[in-house]
Amino acid sequence: MDPRFFQELSEVEALERLASVSVGRIVFTHRALPAVRPVNHIVANGHIIIRTDPDTVLGRKVMPSGTVVAFETDELDMAEHLGWAVTVTGTARAVDDPWEATRFKDLLRPWLVGDMDQVIRIHPQIITGFTLVPSSTADGSAQR
Amino acid sequence: MDPRFFQELSEVEALERLASVSVGRIVFTHRALPAVRPVNHIVANGHIIIRTDPDTVLGRKVMPSGTVVAFETDELDMAEHLGWAVTVTGTARAVDDPWEATRFKDLLRPWLVGDMDQVIRIHPQIITGFTLVPSSTADGSAQR
Repeated sequence: MDPRFFQELSEVEALERLASVSVGRIVFTHRALPAVRPVNHIVANGHIIIRTDPDTVLGRKVMPSGTVVAFETDELDMAEHLGWAVTVTGTARAVDDPWEATRFKDLLRPWLVGDMDQVIRIHPQIITGFTLVPSSTADGSAQR
Repeated sequence: MDPRFFQELSEVEALERLASVSVGRIVFTHRALPAVRPVNHIVANGHIIIRTDPDTVLGRKVMPSGTVVAFETDELDMAEHLGWAVTVTGTARAVDDPWEATRFKDLLRPWLVGDMDQVIRIHPQIITGFTLVPSSTADGSAQR
């Protein structure tokens, strides 16, 4: 298989791709170690919304004060070596306003059984993304 | 859709799943911020092997000294809310031995065009994984 070129996405394109899938991976630091958890999400007003159990590492970690996290989504085709990936870095905070939390809980149903009562909002500050393109279709902006 | 139960995988099962796919996400800390990059991988002798361009953040970050990273793989079905995820935490180090680096380069072809000459080995120290199972088939070990 020919190697692929790496072509950057604009911030708008990157957020659109992130919003087009329902699962991503939240990346944070726990006890000075890198940690990552897959989680289902929605995008609302340009913010990433997730739910978690308040009694998990993720729940305790971001509540009540904000913490910087990364959030990664991708769709990568292992057979064709094509696809895209988007990573957002930003501040994650618990949604404390009860009305707002209820609204997000109506919009976002957790996959998991249990007390997924904590709603977390990630405010994107850095947005990066790329698509993998076959060499033959790469335009001038293609870069590694 | 019924919510799913979270069922833990053993370390052996988790590494088998990680080795069954060719793409994962390496998670590390860069300038005190959480960072994540998708990358293709193989598993050799229980170690995760990846390749990178030595002139990237990832390349400079782990070379020449070791750094602690997480490596995440998953196969999650967005329609069915089923699948699995595995995360390994361990030390990543550049493979400096030329014979060994050449052997890994023969086994692991990068998806990307370019100078992917740096081979990195991750030695797993913590291995965790889960499958999502429908409520009706969850056995006694199922937990969130």
